[in-house]
Amino acid sequence: MKTHDKIILASLKLFNEKGERAVSTNHIAEYLGISPGNLYYHFRNKEDIIKSIFEKYIEHMQKSFIADDEHTPAEVFLQQYCDQVFNSFWQFRFFHSSMPGIVLRDKGLHKRYLSAHTLLGERAKYSVVKLQQDEIINIDDQDIDDLVELMRVVGSFWMNYLMANTLNGKITKAQLYRGILKIINLLWPYTTPTGKLRLSVLRERYQVLSHSKKTLT
Amino acid sequence: MKTHDKIILASLKLFNEKGERAVSTNHIAEYLGISPGNLYYHFRNKEDIIKSIFEKYIEHMQKSFIADDEHTPAEVFLQQYCDQVFNSFWQFRFFHSSMPGIVLRDKGLHKRYLSAHTLLGERAKYSVVKLQQDEIINIDDQDIDDLVELMRVVGSFWMNYLMANTLNGKITKAQLYRGILKIINLLWPYTTPTGKLRLSVLRERYQVLSHSKKTLT
Repeated sequence: MKTHDKIILASLKLFNEKGERAVSTNHIAEYLGISPGNLYYHFRNKEDIIKSIFEKYIEHMQKSFIADDEHTPAEVFLQQYCDQVFNSFWQFRFFHSSMPGIVLRDKGLHKRYLSAHTLLGERAKYSVVKLQQDEIINIDDQDIDDLVELMRVVGSFWMNYLMANTLNGKITKAQLYRGILKIINLLWPYTTPTGKLRLSVLRERYQVLSHSKKTLT
Repeated sequence: MKTHDKIILASLKLFNEKGERAVSTNHIAEYLGISPGNLYYHFRNKEDIIKSIFEKYIEHMQKSFIADDEHTPAEVFLQQYCDQVFNSFWQFRFFHSSMPGIVLRDKGLHKRYLSAHTLLGERAKYSVVKLQQDEIINIDDQDIDDLVELMRVVGSFWMNYLMANTLNGKITKAQLYRGILKIINLLWPYTTPTGKLRLSVLRERYQVLSHSKKTLT
């Protein structure tokens, strides 16, 4: 692997583990056993590294949006969507836990964040409409946008909520899955009787995952 | 006013307006027209000022929790609760928009945050139970804790969500009230027919406030 890419990977790892603010370019160089001078040959400063990680994040999100096959049952689509989104959040958790501060420092970064999250919002809405068409939920059309916005707030800030409520700020991937259960909680009051049965399967899946001791990184 | 208190007030104002990270002790001294030496006579460093502001925040929250009169209708109690909490969030918005980073830097601060937010959570639960007793909502007892946690995530991170989704990060108090509408959205699917009528009054109040052009600081 090229030094450039090694620096990005190591930075992501250190930022995720220790928080972006606590990690300097010197820490990154030391971790990789390279000189600070070598690091500065590849990146001007820490912000420059953060931007490169951000590009990877956008790429990761865009790649993970597979096209929907219209024959996919709505609850399966919901599961795929949640898995993809929460997996991105986990892999780039230093980034999410520093929201909104980290994007407010850089207008270019912020614009890209907004376009990525517009896409996320559209997928969330598509997912809710599909659940409605499949008669898993029954919701007034006029209430859909409010529900989608709640899904976005809860999804985007679940990790921040967890960290703020954990004394050392260390969270596990199992706890992250509890966030998907929260998304299911949001949908639950709108479920039809058959919808309850179908979403129960999904709920059990995440209940198991949220109690798993294994940290799936 | 004593210099000590002037420094706290000016710092809170500057942090709220520009973000904590962008404001140095030199900026604060300059804003007040005092020498950096004078500022350092009162506070060791920026973290020391942040701690003092945090004490004010805790005080503000604790004072705002008036005892509930059992004859208060549940939707009135909910309104008082939301007004108090969102007002605290607004007044100390630099603090909330830096969550969880700002508490992860200081264990003492974090412990106080957790105890304050445990209290907030208990009040939120009390409010939901009261809505249930007044037959405004009808929710299975086993689902109450999940609903309360959703209220906490949405309430605590509404401002972060707004800032992350606004290109310059500047938000108005009117937008903040949209967060209270989100809390009402969470309760809505559980409302009884008479509950819908009673919560509608509350909803209209916040719809008006969230469209107000005036920034009520």
